[in-house]
Amino acid sequence: MGASGYTGAELLRILLKHPRINIKKIIGDKSAGKDISKIFSNFSGIKLPKINSFLNTNFSNIDVLFSCAPSGVLSEKMNSLSKHLVVIDLSADYRIQNLNLYNEYYESHKNPSFIKKFTYGLSEIFKSEIKKSKLIACPGCYPTSVLIPLIPILNAGLIKNKDIIIDSKSGITGAGRNLKSDLLFSENFGSLKAYGQGKHRHKPEIEHIIKLCTKKKVSITFTPHIIPINRGILSSIYVKGDFRKILDHLNLFYKKSNFVKISQDNNLPKIGDVIGSNLCRIGLIKHYNSEYITIISVIDNLVKGASGQAVQNLNIIMRYREELGLDNQSLSP
Amino acid sequence: MGASGYTGAELLRILLKHPRINIKKIIGDKSAGKDISKIFSNFSGIKLPKINSFLNTNFSNIDVLFSCAPSGVLSEKMNSLSKHLVVIDLSADYRIQNLNLYNEYYESHKNPSFIKKFTYGLSEIFKSEIKKSKLIACPGCYPTSVLIPLIPILNAGLIKNKDIIIDSKSGITGAGRNLKSDLLFSENFGSLKAYGQGKHRHKPEIEHIIKLCTKKKVSITFTPHIIPINRGILSSIYVKGDFRKILDHLNLFYKKSNFVKISQDNNLPKIGDVIGSNLCRIGLIKHYNSEYITIISVIDNLVKGASGQAVQNLNIIMRYREELGLDNQSLSP
Amino acid sequence: MGASGYTGAELLRILLKHPRINIKKIIGDKSAGKDISKIFSNFSGIKLPKINSFLNTNFSNIDVLFSCAPSGVLSEKMNSLSKHLVVIDLSADYRIQNLNLYNEYYESHKNPSFIKKFTYGLSEIFKSEIKKSKLIACPGCYPTSVLIPLIPILNAGLIKNKDIIIDSKSGITGAGRNLKSDLLFSENFGSLKAYGQGKHRHKPEIEHIIKLCTKKKVSITFTPHIIPINRGILSSIYVKGDFRKILDHLNLFYKKSNFVKISQDNNLPKIGDVIGSNLCRIGLIKHYNSEYITIISVIDNLVKGASGQAVQNLNIIMRYREELGLDNQSLSP
Amino acid sequence: MGASGYTGAELLRILLKHPRINIKKIIGDKSAGKDISKIFSNFSGIKLPKINSFLNTNFSNIDVLFSCAPSGVLSEKMNSLSKHLVVIDLSADYRIQNLNLYNEYYESHKNPSFIKKFTYGLSEIFKSEIKKSKLIACPGCYPTSVLIPLIPILNAGLIKNKDIIIDSKSGITGAGRNLKSDLLFSENFGSLKAYGQGKHRHKPEIEHIIKLCTKKKVSITFTPHIIPINRGILSSIYVKGDFRKILDHLNLFYKKSNFVKISQDNNLPKIGDVIGSNLCRIGLIKHYNSEYITIISVIDNLVKGASGQAVQNLNIIMRYREELGLDNQSLSP
Repeated sequence: MGASGYTGAELLRILLKHPRINIKKIIGDKSAGKDISKIFSNFSGIKLPKINSFLNTNFSNIDVLFSCAPSGVLSEKMNSLSKHLVVIDLSADYRIQNLNLYNEYYESHKNPSFIKKFTYGLSEIFKSEIKKSKLIACPGCYPTSVLIPLIPILNAGLIKNKDIIIDSKSGITGAGRNLKSDLLFSENFGSLKAYGQGKHRHKPEIEHIIKLCTKKKVSITFTPHIIPINRGILSSIYVKGDFRKILDHLNLFYKKSNFVKISQDNNLPKIGDVIGSNLCRIGLIKHYNSEYITIISVIDNLVKGASGQAVQNLNIIMRYREELGLDNQSLSP
Repeated sequence: MGASGYTGAELLRILLKHPRINIKKIIGDKSAGKDISKIFSNFSGIKLPKINSFLNTNFSNIDVLFSCAPSGVLSEKMNSLSKHLVVIDLSADYRIQNLNLYNEYYESHKNPSFIKKFTYGLSEIFKSEIKKSKLIACPGCYPTSVLIPLIPILNAGLIKNKDIIIDSKSGITGAGRNLKSDLLFSENFGSLKAYGQGKHRHKPEIEHIIKLCTKKKVSITFTPHIIPINRGILSSIYVKGDFRKILDHLNLFYKKSNFVKISQDNNLPKIGDVIGSNLCRIGLIKHYNSEYITIISVIDNLVKGASGQAVQNLNIIMRYREELGLDNQSLSP
Repeated sequence: MGASGYTGAELLRILLKHPRINIKKIIGDKSAGKDISKIFSNFSGIKLPKINSFLNTNFSNIDVLFSCAPSGVLSEKMNSLSKHLVVIDLSADYRIQNLNLYNEYYESHKNPSFIKKFTYGLSEIFKSEIKKSKLIACPGCYPTSVLIPLIPILNAGLIKNKDIIIDSKSGITGAGRNLKSDLLFSENFGSLKAYGQGKHRHKPEIEHIIKLCTKKKVSITFTPHIIPINRGILSSIYVKGDFRKILDHLNLFYKKSNFVKISQDNNLPKIGDVIGSNLCRIGLIKHYNSEYITIISVIDNLVKGASGQAVQNLNIIMRYREELGLDNQSLSP
Repeated sequence: MGASGYTGAELLRILLKHPRINIKKIIGDKSAGKDISKIFSNFSGIKLPKINSFLNTNFSNIDVLFSCAPSGVLSEKMNSLSKHLVVIDLSADYRIQNLNLYNEYYESHKNPSFIKKFTYGLSEIFKSEIKKSKLIACPGCYPTSVLIPLIPILNAGLIKNKDIIIDSKSGITGAGRNLKSDLLFSENFGSLKAYGQGKHRHKPEIEHIIKLCTKKKVSITFTPHIIPINRGILSSIYVKGDFRKILDHLNLFYKKSNFVKISQDNNLPKIGDVIGSNLCRIGLIKHYNSEYITIISVIDNLVKGASGQAVQNLNIIMRYREELGLDNQSLSP
């Protein structure tokens, strides 16, 4: 569901390669009746069902619903969905389990009764909860890049929970596919800007999940930037702590992870090292004459930051191999 | 073999996902002793053998050698290779079976005795020959984009074989990974240029293969251009013929192809529709008040134009499914 | 007039640096009442009048009107304009002096009575006519890049007037600033496409002006492409003729030109060599084993292809130095 | 001097448009004897002297020497230069007046005797000193973007001088024009990375100049990043202070500045708003639920961050209008 956006298209791309999944329906109210290839020409010549409206969709043969619709859409439909469905939501509707906090940053919640029933789908951190769940709220793209390195080291008490500064840079697909002059090619090519006005919606998500996981209240300062590329997030996270201890702990924590890779010593990952893959790559900078460590965390916002992690969560729920249908190498250069 | 170039890296990316292949050795004389991840950081954290020099490589357990070395390297080594090996060469050494023509455009051939033993690896056209062959000369990137549409319609007599003009645009990976100021980021960003000085090496390859296939002498005019993107070739081919007949014939000829897709009516493929995939997408422009048809053919130069087609040829030789390990969708956007 | 488009913004940029011009009014019906800096943030902090609607604009103190509005807007207003005004139109309304031909490609003309009163503003070719004129129809961007090299050599009989093929590549500002999904950043980044469906509006303009200048009927085949950069056109023009004679004649013809530069021998200009400047740079490719010559012509579509040439025409009319306020060097890299 | 780098080329571009300057010599030891147009094709067709070696250069008719050579080159030549010369150095040789600090970050200084004789050329801050000086050390690009906003507000005591975090993003021309694989187009396109290993040379420069100006010791944490564009720096500077007071003070301090523009309220400048101009644009982000303010400062690294500021300094020394030959508008889009 949500066929005309970039996360929807990316989900289709991944699912088409997944050996255990059949795409039975594509749902999109704005584009009902169309071929998806009329919206995304890269699907032309590839067999896919026509786009259906939600109301005309019969869910009886469906096991799993991925929702790539904007925030506020799935919550309105939750009551009408059959209980047998596994629902994997890529919007923000059920990411924040604190209704007041949600309402402070988003429009008033349309169906809070499900808030406690959804599991936050940060795969590496909540794997055991996801296994037992049928309702998954996939994390935002920025939070994914930030929480994967921060949660283990905050839990281990290796960094101070004050004055954490997050300076994130995202490719433009992260801003969606709306017809706004801000998103035109010529307004962005060769340029770069900060945005979010100091109140981006991913800030409370990060703080909320950290509190949930670590029982510690943290206050972060978060500045997102738009970079003139299509895919990828690089978050530069400034924390106070010991370089060696943080690096050792991250190495240990993600030792067996298929998708989280820690760069050793001075090596730093770049966005080109994750494009098209479900990887999160992390490296550390030890500053000369400064107490701060910069944690560099990179993901592909459309894969690990959205549709890839959604499929990873499905794999976990279905007891498939966690990496089934997902790449652990980037398309590079 | 040829570990420090872009086609070598791309081959590794594809082979790592191929279910029937084990990468036993990586050969590179310039980079022997190194980890490939020191050259291409996107392989860091992924298990691969260290780079070996050619002389130190024991081929006894090896079934297939892919050579991504520059032109002139493999031919020198052919005599020393064991005859059991399947050799798939991505260089130009054995693409042109006319020694005089080869020597007119390249440095003097170092081992012409193998010229007639290699099969030209344009998979869709030479499939039956490839099946019977152990020595494959994979086509150049531009020729792949040009020959796939031209050969069937020339063979069917649907276009004139005079005044064929080919205006090709390629991403910069096509120019390789040499340290030349021409290839620096800042010399190319926001710019665009023609190159080749009217004597690009892919021109005789195109003319030679057309003659081989169609028994007709054609003379083409070929201007390659460099576009400031990483991957992709779009060839605009100007021919005189009937729009509907050409389109119908291409549809028929490539009806069952996994990788060649013909756009219908007025639709034209773009480079974004093939990135990362082994596709060749073709569309036609019917000009108002002009006898010419423009054939638009797009490929990813590193995949269908190099390493992907090399793997497709291996699949054909090994009687694997032709599309094994290869994507037929692009990474888009 | 026409404040919210890219040629309007570019015109302002140039006029702000022009030592003999005061910008008295900015006219824009869609954006009336706004500061131009709310549309183009690069004007913030720079003193400029607020945007006016056309109807509220008093022209009594105005000597010159530049119209950057879309085709069809100025022609409707011509009857209401005072005769003292110099009018420099950047739209297509009065480029083609053949009404039937215009109507074949555009919407039905709204005010053909002025067709014969406008002078085609290709500065280098029509300078003496422009000097005597108060109504100027500035050429389209593609025609500018094509006509500057073609007219002198067609006039001199140096090339055949059949089978001229023009393969043009343009930056995305050439497509304007409309909110269409085609123009979004993410739909174009890393991609490349042909467009125009074989009937682009600049084809009849090129043919018409060639006939006007040379009295010869030519038929061209024209395929425009969109390149993922902001500015610049590179036209690759395929003609049959003698390399040395064509080069010599272009050198002679443009010897004293401030803005047309001919590259010598094998050198070819690239788009980076003209960005931000009013230059047209031209180079020639002599093909090995082909009768064709490729003429490479590059301009900045927003400067020589639009607002710069408009100012050049004003300079000619006003007897200012022709290059006043215009750059003859590119911003490079 | 220093003809083959990007700051040298940019200086030529600016000087060619400067109404009071004649370019008498171009000096470059690596490229002596060549035309500069063989290195930078955008100068082809423009009259400029051939490149000279330093030793063959007669300085008797020269009033001003701009040095764009790498760090370490000018200092070696200082003793041989005539005292009548105004010397404007764009390298780091004389930026840091603390020899120990210099030697900690750079190679051992080759001629420290001149250290105290150079004036730090941050035009807006050191204008009165520059007026009296003949030897100017132009600031680094990152320091320019950082010091323009920080010095006034540190001097006014409006922000804490601890825990200042600077996250800077630079276009690739900032890394120079060396033939390194890091700088190849294909290694950077579509990617993004942090670099500098926690010990970038611009960190001590920033700290040193702040101490010089404000008598306060500050410790900064500085992480530079490479963005896949040609020009522009955006520095995101995290400080603790009061949004309104900082904004008011910057407005007051730079009220009469030609080149420093402060964005009001929530507006933030982007790199596209300064390209090609000598502007520094500054905006502030007030964070919801955080004590931090993010200062966004953007410049064109080649203009205000290098060659433009060098010319601005010359204008100050020569009592020309400060903005002579310099643009205060960007080339946008």
